[in-house]
Amino acid sequence: MDIAILGYGVVGSGVAEVIRKNSRSIADRAGEQIRVRKILDIRDFPDSPDRELITKDPEEVFGDPEIKIIVETIGGIGVAQEYTKRAFSAGKHVVTSNKELVAVHGPELLKIAADNGVSYLFEASVGGGIPIIRPLSQCLAANIINGITGILNGTTNYILTKMRRENCSFSDALVNAQKNGYAEADPTADVEGHDTCRKIAILSSIAFNEYVDCSRIHTEGISRITLADMMYAEAMDSVIKLIAVSRREGDRVFARVSPVVVNKEHPLAGVEDVFNAIVVSGDAIGDAMFYGRGAGKLPTASAVVADVIDIVKHNESTKTVWQRRDTDNMVPFGESVTGCLVRVAARNKNEAAADIEKVFGRVEYVSADIKGIDDELAFTTAKMTESNLSERIGELKSMRSIKEVVNVIRILEL
Amino acid sequence: MDIAILGYGVVGSGVAEVIRKNSRSIADRAGEQIRVRKILDIRDFPDSPDRELITKDPEEVFGDPEIKIIVETIGGIGVAQEYTKRAFSAGKHVVTSNKELVAVHGPELLKIAADNGVSYLFEASVGGGIPIIRPLSQCLAANIINGITGILNGTTNYILTKMRRENCSFSDALVNAQKNGYAEADPTADVEGHDTCRKIAILSSIAFNEYVDCSRIHTEGISRITLADMMYAEAMDSVIKLIAVSRREGDRVFARVSPVVVNKEHPLAGVEDVFNAIVVSGDAIGDAMFYGRGAGKLPTASAVVADVIDIVKHNESTKTVWQRRDTDNMVPFGESVTGCLVRVAARNKNEAAADIEKVFGRVEYVSADIKGIDDELAFTTAKMTESNLSERIGELKSMRSIKEVVNVIRILEL
Repeated sequence: MDIAILGYGVVGSGVAEVIRKNSRSIADRAGEQIRVRKILDIRDFPDSPDRELITKDPEEVFGDPEIKIIVETIGGIGVAQEYTKRAFSAGKHVVTSNKELVAVHGPELLKIAADNGVSYLFEASVGGGIPIIRPLSQCLAANIINGITGILNGTTNYILTKMRRENCSFSDALVNAQKNGYAEADPTADVEGHDTCRKIAILSSIAFNEYVDCSRIHTEGISRITLADMMYAEAMDSVIKLIAVSRREGDRVFARVSPVVVNKEHPLAGVEDVFNAIVVSGDAIGDAMFYGRGAGKLPTASAVVADVIDIVKHNESTKTVWQRRDTDNMVPFGESVTGCLVRVAARNKNEAAADIEKVFGRVEYVSADIKGIDDELAFTTAKMTESNLSERIGELKSMRSIKEVVNVIRILEL
Repeated sequence: MDIAILGYGVVGSGVAEVIRKNSRSIADRAGEQIRVRKILDIRDFPDSPDRELITKDPEEVFGDPEIKIIVETIGGIGVAQEYTKRAFSAGKHVVTSNKELVAVHGPELLKIAADNGVSYLFEASVGGGIPIIRPLSQCLAANIINGITGILNGTTNYILTKMRRENCSFSDALVNAQKNGYAEADPTADVEGHDTCRKIAILSSIAFNEYVDCSRIHTEGISRITLADMMYAEAMDSVIKLIAVSRREGDRVFARVSPVVVNKEHPLAGVEDVFNAIVVSGDAIGDAMFYGRGAGKLPTASAVVADVIDIVKHNESTKTVWQRRDTDNMVPFGESVTGCLVRVAARNKNEAAADIEKVFGRVEYVSADIKGIDDELAFTTAKMTESNLSERIGELKSMRSIKEVVNVIRILEL
């Protein structure tokens, strides 16, 4: 079986490498030899072991009837979307690691694939090398999936781990992550949670069997998290993680990406560095967790190649298409319920405590001995809706006794 | 698609329940409705919701051409093996949760299935509801699998967790497990490691693509583990777990089931109660971990139903058959390498320490303050072969300074 790779970047070259290196065991699993016939890229790679396969002419890929499977590792929407459609029209299956394209245009692309009798597979788009898309859609198929909770971005998890372990600021940890190749020069998509948001949208669409639009998911990043926040979390026997949650609420779906306080008893609390982990709750299995390297050249390439092998074995057409519902299928963010850790800087601590009680009723205070901070009160709130919460935070801010609301961080339920 | 269930026990009735309860979402995933047409059992179940489906006549199952898939949840070898073969001859696919049958007769049964153009699937035989068989054979197909390390038995993990948390003896914890339905009246298969051994044999056969015979795997259980052992482990910042390991060593396979000392940094150390977890090491993905409920009615049933859905969707024949190698494919146990925690009761501590040094060279002592134990020396050895180790333990036993070698527990490498 001959395939082509679009985009000879980190993942694309990794795919060529894995297929070259493990060709015999891959052939055993797939039932036939898999060969990379062409690699499409506009750049030159004179020193690459794959240089003779590289072409700049798309027609050499799309016009070649011997190429049955296209691996798209270009990323982004534009060209990637155009080439994906062109591959489908030419009757070729597509395997991708492109989470942005799947999250934004999944419904249309799956439909076109199905109409053309080919597959569109994207195991590598979430969780890097961790098998999660196929377990979710196949292994857990007998379950009603109630919810998904996950650490889906290695860059932010690395930064948070670094901050906590080495007592350094967010920006120092970010610079370190960039130096070590764990964060890009423009880290916005990772740090502000957009990457995590696309991934939870994809997982939710599979789990709940209808399209969950990433643009409708409330998303906050970690750039406002400080060491002091982490020390308060520690005092609560917890850590702070960037967590995506998604769950069925009646006929609707609730999803959110934000930093949260995670109790150390929770299995996600111990997931450190660039590792990712996803907890899936099903009605029959209870909770299952999938853990591993969420990014990186070879882990991601291995997920791509697993999809290629699947197509070689089954040569099937995509059957499951994500429907966009006519009516809104999302729980409005303001209606969702959460408890929080709130930090306020007080002009006068006694007055502030009285004001906090006026606004929130009885609260639980969290005390942590943090150098340089002595005017603060930190407390955890009862659970309430997000609208209710932001209203009350607004009230706090208007109090004379309170200088500033320093931070508000949600608490993950166990 | 009509199916039949053989054996209306815990798992069998769970399969009927899951199919009844989640019929709509299962039909969505499978592409058609799945119905239980017959249940074969020699017992009567007058109060069961499935009573009208139950028959005692095998011919009603095997002779019915409408039944395309047989779910075998009888367990054991005898009848289960006979009925599995009969199903294959009748051109029916078989899905099972029967680890003993798969571990012992997998090569023959897979061959018969392939010859008859049907599937033999057994996701439920390992890890209960945790998806592991399919991820190992499909999702990680692009990897050379180097090793597997796992907690594969919920009963023993529950007992060890109970002992450690509640400071109770093995036998008290066992009685508690039996009371709570986590251990059978005859707990031998669980407690002595046989169940774990069958499971690691199945996982190894898939991972290494050739049959690994469970009767060739060195297997020890947990019945000799005491609270004092756990306290020494705690002093090493570790816990004791019943762990199955399996890895490729050159052209051969090494596999072992035994209690081991696991450092708390290891992801398996935090797996408590009846939970199972499996760490798979692949050349491309690195380490991935799968975690969840390793047993129980609905988790196991959900794995069975996932296999049924797979067959409904693909209607394929088993392609991968496990070959039995003519020559021995196992690393002889005596050649395998390990480090250990050794406890000796001394007649005279100073003399014993000198004798220990004579036998083992320089060792690291582990000190723990354990009530009622004051004549002991505990130490960890360097890594050495099992033959070498047992020879040296023999020497220790012959020393006049040493009353007794109290226990020898292997240490898991990180």
